[in-house]
Amino acid sequence: MALSIRKNMNRLFGFIHKFNLSSRSFCASVLPDNKALADSRVFSGIQPTGVPHLGNYLGALENWVSFQHQYPLVLYSIVDLHSITQPQDPEQLRANILDMAASLLACGIDPEKAILFQQSQVSEHAELSWILGCLTSMPRLRHLPQWKMKSKQKSEGSVGLYTYPVLQAADILLYKSTHVPVGEDQVQHLELAQDLARIFNHRFGDLFPEPRTLLSSTRKVKSLRDPSSKMSKSDPHNMATISVTDSPENIALKIRRSVTDFTSEVTFDPDTRPGVSNLVTIHAAMARISVEEAVSQAKGMDTGAYKSLVTEAVIQRLTPIREEIERLRADRTYLESVLLQGTQKARELAAPVLKEARHRVGFC
Amino acid sequence: MALSIRKNMNRLFGFIHKFNLSSRSFCASVLPDNKALADSRVFSGIQPTGVPHLGNYLGALENWVSFQHQYPLVLYSIVDLHSITQPQDPEQLRANILDMAASLLACGIDPEKAILFQQSQVSEHAELSWILGCLTSMPRLRHLPQWKMKSKQKSEGSVGLYTYPVLQAADILLYKSTHVPVGEDQVQHLELAQDLARIFNHRFGDLFPEPRTLLSSTRKVKSLRDPSSKMSKSDPHNMATISVTDSPENIALKIRRSVTDFTSEVTFDPDTRPGVSNLVTIHAAMARISVEEAVSQAKGMDTGAYKSLVTEAVIQRLTPIREEIERLRADRTYLESVLLQGTQKARELAAPVLKEARHRVGFC
Repeated sequence: MALSIRKNMNRLFGFIHKFNLSSRSFCASVLPDNKALADSRVFSGIQPTGVPHLGNYLGALENWVSFQHQYPLVLYSIVDLHSITQPQDPEQLRANILDMAASLLACGIDPEKAILFQQSQVSEHAELSWILGCLTSMPRLRHLPQWKMKSKQKSEGSVGLYTYPVLQAADILLYKSTHVPVGEDQVQHLELAQDLARIFNHRFGDLFPEPRTLLSSTRKVKSLRDPSSKMSKSDPHNMATISVTDSPENIALKIRRSVTDFTSEVTFDPDTRPGVSNLVTIHAAMARISVEEAVSQAKGMDTGAYKSLVTEAVIQRLTPIREEIERLRADRTYLESVLLQGTQKARELAAPVLKEARHRVGFC
Repeated sequence: MALSIRKNMNRLFGFIHKFNLSSRSFCASVLPDNKALADSRVFSGIQPTGVPHLGNYLGALENWVSFQHQYPLVLYSIVDLHSITQPQDPEQLRANILDMAASLLACGIDPEKAILFQQSQVSEHAELSWILGCLTSMPRLRHLPQWKMKSKQKSEGSVGLYTYPVLQAADILLYKSTHVPVGEDQVQHLELAQDLARIFNHRFGDLFPEPRTLLSSTRKVKSLRDPSSKMSKSDPHNMATISVTDSPENIALKIRRSVTDFTSEVTFDPDTRPGVSNLVTIHAAMARISVEEAVSQAKGMDTGAYKSLVTEAVIQRLTPIREEIERLRADRTYLESVLLQGTQKARELAAPVLKEARHRVGFC
C-alpha cells in the first residue's frame, strides 16, 4: 500500500514536472532568493460565486493565506468583470461579491497583509486589457480551454467569454506581478500573460515582468457524487459539493452519501478508487496530516466508519469559518470598507503602471 | 445632361432610402423637433491619422462643423484606442493626435460649442466596452465589414480589430448619444450600437437611447489616381490624396495629374466618367455650389482648363485651414489644454452613465 501511495503522490505532483519540462518559465512553488523575494508580487483572482466550496478552499484559498505570510506584496481580486462573461442576476452578483469578501476574510485573508479588492472598481484593468487585446491575435485565444469548454456548453459564447484570458493577462501585468498561483486548468491562460508581457516589452521597451506560476497545491477535491470530476459550484447535484458554510448536519449527510465503491478497506489510489481516495484527500487536508497518516488512521475501519472520521475533520475545520462568515455577513459596512481600502491600494499600484503603458503605446 | 445629373444625384442619395426601408431607426439628416432637439446628443469619432485629407474634410468634418451649430450637445473624439487596432509607431501616434486636434480646430470645430477630446484619456470607454462585450455574441462581429476587410489585408487581425465595433458602441452609448454621423461603411457598426442599447435596456432596464444615424453628406471624394476607390490616407500613391495642408503647388500638381478620360467636355456621371465627376464633386464642394452649377461653370472648357478651375477652388478653401494648422501646431500647450478641457467635460458626462451601468449589472 505504501508503494501505491507513493506512486499516486508522484502522479499528483507530476504536472509540475511536466510544465518545468515544457516551459522554462514555469516553476514549482519554491520561494525565490532574498533579492528576488523582496521584488515579488503575487496576484490572484477569484470569481464572486458567493461562498466558496471545499474545493476552492483546499485548492486555492489555503495557499492564498500562506502566500500573504511569505511574499511582501500580495493582491487578491474578486474578479467581477470576469463573472459577467456568463449571464448574472445583478442582485445575486452584488450579494455574491460581499459573500466572497466575507468568505475570504473568514478563511484567513488578512487585509493588512494582502490587498483584497474588487476588480471592477479599478478602471485600469479594462483599459490595459484593451491595449493587450490589440497585441493578441484572434487564433491565439481560440484554443484556450475555457473557451472550448464554456462556448460548447452555451452553443456560442460572448465576446467577453472569448477575450477574458486577455483581461486576465491585464489583471496580472497591471501590478507587475511576478508570481501567480494558478490551477492546472489556468496554466495556458498564464502562458498568454507571459506572451503578452514579452510582446509588449519587445515592441515598447521593458515594462512588465514575465509572471511565473506558483503551483503550490496539487490538491484536487472531487465531486462527492462523481469523483471523476472536480468539485464545482455549478454541479447540478446538490449533494456533490460541500460549501464552507454548510451546517454540520449537511456536511455529515453529504459525506455519508458520497460515492465510494464496494471495497470496505480504505486505501489511496485515485486511479482505481477515486471515491474513497477523494475522502482521504479531504481528510488529510482538513486534519492537516499527510495522506499516509490519513490512510494509517483509517486502518481497520470500513468506508462507513471512515466517513464519520472525515466528517469530524471537516466539521472541526469549517465550523469557525462558517461562524466568522455569518458574523461578517451581518456587518456589511465593514466588508465594504475593507474592499474600498483594498481598491484604493490597488489603484495606487495600478495607476502608474497603466500611465506608463499608455505613454509607451503613444497615447500621451 | 440635366437628366444625367439628376439620375446620379438620386444614386448618391439612394443609400439613405435603402436604410430607411431596412431599418426604421435610420433617418436622413432632418433636424428633430424642438423637444427632441433639446435632448439630442451627437457623438462622432475620428482616428488620429494626423492631418486629414480632402475626403475626410468634405465627407465628415464639414458636417461636424455644422452640427455644432445645430445640436445642443456635440462630442467629437480623437479615437486613439481604435487606432492601435493596427500597429502604430508611438512617436508618430503622439504627433498624429496633436495634428488631428490642430486640424479639427482649423477646420472649424469650436471647443466652446463641441466637446473635443482624446478617447484614451476617458477610462470609461474601455470599461463600458467590457460590459457590452459580455452582451455581444462572437458571430455578431464576424461579418462586420471592417473585420472582413482589414483582417484579410493582414492575414489575421488582432482581438482589438475584431472587437472594436463593441468599443465604438461603448463610445456612443457612454454619452447617451442620440445621433451619430456615420459614413456608409460604418452603418453596420451603428446597428451593433443600437442592438447593444436594446439588449442592455432589455436585460437591465432602460438606460441608453438607441442612437440614430445622421446621414447628412453623401459626398464621396475619390482617389485622384483611381477614381473607383475612395480617397484614402493609406493610398500608396502619393498623388492620389490631397491633404488639407498640401501647398498650393502640390495641390495644382496633383489635380493636373489626376486621372480623367479621353472626352474633353466636362459632365457629371460617376458611373461612366468617374474621374472627371470626382473633380466636379470636389469643385462643387470647395466652391460651395451645386453640382449643376459646377458643370455649368465648366461649359466650353476642356478637362485641362477645368482642372485649373478646380485647383483654384481647392487652394482658396484650403489655404486658411493650412495656415491655421501651422499656427496651432506651433502652440502645443494650447492644443493640449483644449484636449484636457474636452477630456474633463467628457468625463463629467461619462462618469455618471458608467456608474449607473455598473450598478445595473450588479457590480455595486
